[in-house]
Parts: sequence; C-alpha cells; structure tokens
Amino acid sequence: MTESAESSAGSSAGSSVPPRSSAAPAARVPGLHAVVPAGGAGTRLWPLSRAGSPKFLHDLTGAGRSLLQQTVDRLAPLADGVVVVTGERHAAAVLDQLPDLRGSVLAEPSPRDSMAAIGLAAAVLAEREDDPVIGSFAADQVVEAGPAFGEAVRQAVVAARAGYVVTVGIRASGPSTAFGYVRTGEPLGLADAPDACRASGFTEKPDAATAAAYLATGEYRWNAGMFVVRASVLLDHLARLLPVLHDGLREIARAWDTDARDDVLARVWPGLQRIAIDHAIAEPVAAEGGVAVVPGDFGWDDVGDFASLGDLVPADAEGRHVLGDADAVLTLDAARPVVVPGSGRLVAVLGLDDAVVVDMPDALLVTTRAHAQQVKGVVDAVRAAGRDDLV
Amino acid sequence: MTESAESSAGSSAGSSVPPRSSAAPAARVPGLHAVVPAGGAGTRLWPLSRAGSPKFLHDLTGAGRSLLQQTVDRLAPLADGVVVVTGERHAAAVLDQLPDLRGSVLAEPSPRDSMAAIGLAAAVLAEREDDPVIGSFAADQVVEAGPAFGEAVRQAVVAARAGYVVTVGIRASGPSTAFGYVRTGEPLGLADAPDACRASGFTEKPDAATAAAYLATGEYRWNAGMFVVRASVLLDHLARLLPVLHDGLREIARAWDTDARDDVLARVWPGLQRIAIDHAIAEPVAAEGGVAVVPGDFGWDDVGDFASLGDLVPADAEGRHVLGDADAVLTLDAARPVVVPGSGRLVAVLGLDDAVVVDMPDALLVTTRAHAQQVKGVVDAVRAAGRDDLV
Repeated sequence: MTESAESSAGSSAGSSVPPRSSAAPAARVPGLHAVVPAGGAGTRLWPLSRAGSPKFLHDLTGAGRSLLQQTVDRLAPLADGVVVVTGERHAAAVLDQLPDLRGSVLAEPSPRDSMAAIGLAAAVLAEREDDPVIGSFAADQVVEAGPAFGEAVRQAVVAARAGYVVTVGIRASGPSTAFGYVRTGEPLGLADAPDACRASGFTEKPDAATAAAYLATGEYRWNAGMFVVRASVLLDHLARLLPVLHDGLREIARAWDTDARDDVLARVWPGLQRIAIDHAIAEPVAAEGGVAVVPGDFGWDDVGDFASLGDLVPADAEGRHVLGDADAVLTLDAARPVVVPGSGRLVAVLGLDDAVVVDMPDALLVTTRAHAQQVKGVVDAVRAAGRDDLV
Repeated sequence: MTESAESSAGSSAGSSVPPRSSAAPAARVPGLHAVVPAGGAGTRLWPLSRAGSPKFLHDLTGAGRSLLQQTVDRLAPLADGVVVVTGERHAAAVLDQLPDLRGSVLAEPSPRDSMAAIGLAAAVLAEREDDPVIGSFAADQVVEAGPAFGEAVRQAVVAARAGYVVTVGIRASGPSTAFGYVRTGEPLGLADAPDACRASGFTEKPDAATAAAYLATGEYRWNAGMFVVRASVLLDHLARLLPVLHDGLREIARAWDTDARDDVLARVWPGLQRIAIDHAIAEPVAAEGGVAVVPGDFGWDDVGDFASLGDLVPADAEGRHVLGDADAVLTLDAARPVVVPGSGRLVAVLGLDDAVVVDMPDALLVTTRAHAQQVKGVVDAVRAAGRDDLV
C-alpha cells in the first residue's frame, strides 16, 4: 500500500458526519466560554482554500454555512459567550460572517500558533470573567451538532472545574493515519462526569499498522484538538512551562479592553513564542497526569483534504460529490468524482474514477482522492514557481 | 483490452510526425491545383476545437501555424494554385489566416459533406483552367512536409493524368483502429509513376485484430483521404454515379465567377446530396478498377483526438506535452500529461498518469489518453444538457 493510499483511506475513515445534521436543542453549560481559533490556510484544500481565503471561511459541506459559522452555531447555545481568535487579515471576513460577534473577535497581528491564540483568549477572558472555563474548538472542523456533543462538553466542563486540562477523544471510525490519537487511562471517578478518564498520552499521526494496533486496544481515540480547561488552570500551567509567553499574553490581556491595546500588541506580540498548544501544554501536562479525556461519540471530521471533503459532500443521484452548482458538472464513465465547480465554467470529467477537480477562477487542480494528502506538495511547487499570488 | 485502450493505441500509432519538420524544397508539379476542404468540428478535440472554432483553425502542434496554414504552406510550393473550401461561417477566419488566398476561398452556404465540397472546387476549377488536375488534402491533418510528400504527389499526378482517381496510401506505423485502410493491388506500370498501383478496395476503421491482419499482408495502407484526379475525370464519374449532384455543382460552378453566384447558390445548394467522396466516388470507382494508390512514406496524423495531439506536441524537459504556455502548468507525480492551458489560469495535475486536461475559458475537460476517442460522448452530453453554446 502506498503512503498516499494509506492517507486517503485514513482520512476517509473520519467521515461519518451527517453533513446536514439538524441542530438538536442543547443544554446550556453555565460558566463555559467558547473559544474558536480561526486560523490555518487549509493547504491541502488548495486552490479552494488558501491563505487569503482560508478553509474556515468556506462552506465545505454544501450546508449553506461556512465551517466557522457552523462552529459558532454549534457552540452558542451551550456557552455563555463565544470568542473568535483570528488573524488581523481575516477579522473583517469573520465579522461579515458573524455580525453578532462584534467585540468578541480577537485579532492577532501575526500568526503565533495555537498556544498564543488560545492563551490570548484565556487571558482576556480571565480579565473579563470570574474564573471562566474555556472550551477551545477549531473553526475548521465538521462536527455533528447533537446531544452527544453537548454531553461531551458538559462532562468536559465538570472535569475542567476539577482542575484538569480536558480533551475530547473522538470515537475512531477507522484506523486513520490523518489524525493524532489520545490514549485513555483510568476513570477519574467524577460523579457528574462518569465517562471522564485520565489521558495517558498523545500520539502524532501514526502509520497504518500502528493506527490499527491502537484501535485494537480499545484505548485510543482521535485527538480533535478540543480543549476544555479553567482559564486559571491553563494560565498557571503556561506560567510554569512557558513563563515568558505567559507574561506576554497576560500583559496584552490586561491592555486588551483599554486604549493601550494597540501599543502593547505592537510591542509584545511579535516576540511571542510560536508553539502549538499540544506541545506547550497537553503533552507535558498529560505526562504529569493533569490531562483528562472525555469520550466524544459524535460524527467529526477535520476536512483535512479533498478525499475527506468528498465524503462530506452528499452524493447526487449520479453518485457525484459536487460542492457547488451540480449543473456545471458533466461526468461520463467517472465513478465517485469530487468536483468543485468554482469558476462558473462547465467541468467535464471522462473516464476517471475517484477524480478530484477543483476549478477556481485563477487556478485548477486535477488529482485523485488517493493523492488528496499530497496537495500540500502542489502548493509548495506553486510557491516555488513564484506564484505566491495563488496560495 | 478495452475498446478505449485499443482506440488510444490505434491513434497513437499514427503519430510518427516530427511536429516541426523543416519544410524541404519541393519541386512544383505543373498543372496541379490543390483543393483544401476545411470543415469538420474536430469533436474529439472538444473543448479546444468546436463548431465555432474548429480544429483546422488551431495550431495543434505548437508549430506557430494552424493546421490549415501548415496545409497551405505545404501545398503552395507544389501547386499552380490553392483553393480552400469552407463554410460561410469560417470564411472570414480562413482569410484572416491566409490573406494571400483572397479569391481562392470557396464558401459553402451550409455543410454538404466532402463530395459537394471537393466537387464544387473541381467544377469551379474546370471552368477556370484547361483540364486541371486537382489534389484534395484535408485542412486538419499533420503531414511531414518533405521530399517523400512531394514525390507521392508527383506520382499521383502522373497517375491522375492517366485517368485514375488516385489516393495516397500512408505507410502504417502500427495497426491503428482510428483510420480506414486502402488495399494495394497490382502495379499500374506507369513509367513516370513506378510506385503507383491499382487500389483493390477501401475499408472502414477496423477492429484491432483486423488491423493487425491487414498489416501482416503488407498490402494495406492508411487512407488519409487525399485524392488526386483530373477534374474532368472526377466530374465524369460524378455525372454517371450521382447525376443530380453533378448537375447542381456544374450549375453553381458556371455561375461562380459571375454576378449570379449568390442567386444560384441560394437556389441550388440547399438541395445538394450530402455524401462523402469516399462513398460517392472512391469505393464504387475502385470496384470498377479506376482507383490508383501511390505510397505515402511520410509522417502523417489526423490529430483525431487528444492522445494523438499529445504525441504530436513535443514533450518538455519534464516529459509533459503542453500545448500553450508551459509556465501555466504544474505537474507532480504525473507522467506524460497532455495539457492545454487555454484560459490563462494555473493548471496543476497531481498523481495522475496520462491525464488529459484541456482548460478553456468557458469549459474544462479532464480525461485520460485512453479515453481520448470517447470525448465525442462528452460533446453529445453537453448538447443534451442544453449547452449548445459550448459545442
């Protein structure tokens, strides 16, 4: 099996999400403040997604709402508030999509990875609220918004109040090689969160054999990067593990709701360390026994590539997965095509199974589902060819 | 072997033409008048070629000249004159490409197939010249313009003067299923045309086994639809075999260089029979022993589909066959792609071997070389979808 085929099989395995699941009534979780990091270019979805028009701003499931909007739609009924952290470049587009969030969009002057993004939100909320619990949920994932999601968040908040950094472990629908895994340890014994367990560790994306071995143990779940934690707990860990980053974020947070915000941001932000929250907090704290995992038994996908997107976009009567105007697509002797007709032109596919055709006004990608994970290489080549205008 | 694979192998077999062969000095053949039927939409080359912008108007080899221009370039040094027969719709475009041919472009009010087109030219030239020999060469083929072509034409004219309808039989480079064949009989024994033989018959496009059997005999050559014949001989055959069509064409020809042309055309042309010259003349006259074949041992291709086009467009350093701006094409893990970047956009191909990507401003085709012959089905489907604007 080739690496690409593995990757494809892996990412396909994640796609058990009903794309248009009806929003079920969710019970509010008092004290929870949702944080939505909206970053990342979605490189593997080029040329649909790109730095200037990233994945989270797109409707990638045909639901009529962008991934960002769907994320906020899902969280708003649960939380006391929703804060979006995004780049300055995208703040206007975020507010266009979410006009109700004016005042709740934190704009980063430059990308500083997920620890700075989530840490900034935690520090700002810690200034604004009384010991808030924050729940961080990426803006570019597809999640089945139903009772199971609400229950996972509820138990996660209980465990967070008990002092844990809590992650949601997604029930794996197959041995995906596209996701990292979290390993579940012994139950925490929390009365109101009976399913919460200690997290005994995190893994990077495994190879196929390792992924299969993980699943055989019954102990591993997909790490969706969802973190629920008291802001004070997160900031205390940060102060201990990355004190300079902590102090910088705290200084910015104190100035955030004042006239000094821009000055402090301009002075402090550029020097902040770039690090993912996984490496900054989750892994070292898990090693200390301070991370909990609650099971997430709901459909989830990170729409990491076009194979995944193809599984999320419902097939039409001809078995085609068209994100956009199906009348603009004509297929003949071509099974399971994934087509994004994004330029207004007619797209005709003949004699290719599992083709991926992404037709944008300035760039066209032709590939197959099996090569979906390698689209990043195309973007690298586009950049190497001096066409930064296209990425 | 699938039908499409056969077809592809077949049409590839024809592609032994050096696309940029330097024009060799050709000896004039006195009394020869070249006739160039410029018709046919080149349906299998959609969306590059289409009814409004047909194959013969395109540079399909990257030579910098359209197929029509290359055809005239090749014939002008040999013949006393060149006449192009085309549809009214394309007459202006033909003259744009060939400004020297003003007065030598015969515009048909509507398509009436090759017998009417060539018959019209023969009848008009018979009015203008003293017993001319006409040589008909399609405007949409790629032919190696060298001494072998000139010699074939020279011998064909000798045989034509002896009263034969003469066809040029192309040396088959493989058992193509994309072309018809002509079978060579006994030598005619003409002193100045030692290679001219009687044609013992024509065949339609064979299946692969039949094609292989043909080649094994050593008697079969590809029928390129090149006909050389005295205008009077052609018209006499026509008068005998299709007298009404003959009379109509004669009436039009008598009026052609007069003020009555438009009136006569409007009255007579619409009623002319639609028939190919192969069925009207070549086959029945061959059965009577009146057709000769001279060998054409030069590179030839009818550029019938994108597989054939891919073979004609030279590979670049990366092994890609790009008709157009190679800088607009980016390939990764994709062997032997055939790409027509015709919209100004970047075309990226990842992980597909033998892909065919034809990117025009209003339509995109994605297929493979093996499916090149089936592009006609796409055009049918485009039409069925009500998108006549695109075909």
